[in-house]
Amino acid sequence: MNNQQFSSSLLENAVNEFAKLPGIGRKTALRLVLHLLKQPEHDVDVFGNSFIKLRKEIRYCKVCHNISDTEVCRICSNASRDQKTVCVVENIKDVMSIENTQQFRGLYHVLGGIISPMDGIGPSDLEIESLIQRVLSEEIKEVILALSTTMEGDTTNFYIFRKLAPFNIKITTIARGIAIGDELEYADEVTLGRSILNRVEFTNSFK
Amino acid sequence: MNNQQFSSSLLENAVNEFAKLPGIGRKTALRLVLHLLKQPEHDVDVFGNSFIKLRKEIRYCKVCHNISDTEVCRICSNASRDQKTVCVVENIKDVMSIENTQQFRGLYHVLGGIISPMDGIGPSDLEIESLIQRVLSEEIKEVILALSTTMEGDTTNFYIFRKLAPFNIKITTIARGIAIGDELEYADEVTLGRSILNRVEFTNSFK
Repeated sequence: MNNQQFSSSLLENAVNEFAKLPGIGRKTALRLVLHLLKQPEHDVDVFGNSFIKLRKEIRYCKVCHNISDTEVCRICSNASRDQKTVCVVENIKDVMSIENTQQFRGLYHVLGGIISPMDGIGPSDLEIESLIQRVLSEEIKEVILALSTTMEGDTTNFYIFRKLAPFNIKITTIARGIAIGDELEYADEVTLGRSILNRVEFTNSFK
Repeated sequence: MNNQQFSSSLLENAVNEFAKLPGIGRKTALRLVLHLLKQPEHDVDVFGNSFIKLRKEIRYCKVCHNISDTEVCRICSNASRDQKTVCVVENIKDVMSIENTQQFRGLYHVLGGIISPMDGIGPSDLEIESLIQRVLSEEIKEVILALSTTMEGDTTNFYIFRKLAPFNIKITTIARGIAIGDELEYADEVTLGRSILNRVEFTNSFK
């Protein structure tokens, strides 16, 4: 498929562009391009320009660094949300995931990654300093650390914890345990062990 | 995922555009858009414009109706190819598949579909009349029918066969049979039956 003969270099370019995307092979790319060719010219214009416009005009909220159309994002500027609780996440996808649960009414702080020496990402590459500034300047009572349970996530958690420890605020982390619907039999030892150590009162678990 | 909360309408638009493509769900669309966001602005410009340009400037070869950058495609204008043999296919993907085999040195004729009353596609919607014109005006010796082995493919084959029968040319169809590497045990009865009826001389099969 790599030395596919294209009768048109325009077609070849378009297929190559699609095939650059992660998880899109050349066969899929060709299928998608041929689909686009069948669409009205206007629709393809809208399609192509939606990405160009997004990349050109995208802004990040100056408070939480979430993706935003405005200077301050919809979440940060929503007065009905709890302005005193900040949930620290790795990226904007995590914001979406937590928003989808509809269980959190506070604000976010998007780090833009996690500390990963292997990939050359240190604390200064992330929005950690701005988090400390927020804690200093805003009236924040609780910081929830909601990072992945990986070596890098734990490192980042610990780094932020140390930085925030001097302040008089509550620092929490999301609960780790057996997922709803999972059977104990298939849970890994560490998760099962932690879920026993961090057991909660029975009534509490139905909140 | 359908009532996903987006913090940016630009982001939402871009995800919606991707999700319109066949086989791309909203989760994949979001993943692809977030990937694009990490790319340099110039690259995203090139990405988006490759589809807009393709759709706007694409032309079809006036001889064979294959996709082309020029009035007559690379295949039709290649003097070293056998100008007397024309292979009739459904779409440009089939041209690519046959070209990839490097076994065919003749020209093509792209119908742009097959006769399918269920989808409201009749002979007049396809490039059948132009095929007859080619046979009339060019010095064609053989027409190879290379359509899918479906009800619609067979109907189209038969329709073209009837139209071309009055001319003094050879009309052939691609061989149907057991695929290379397939075991007889798993072949369907019709294919196996035809492969016995249309058996070839042993030496011939190694050509």
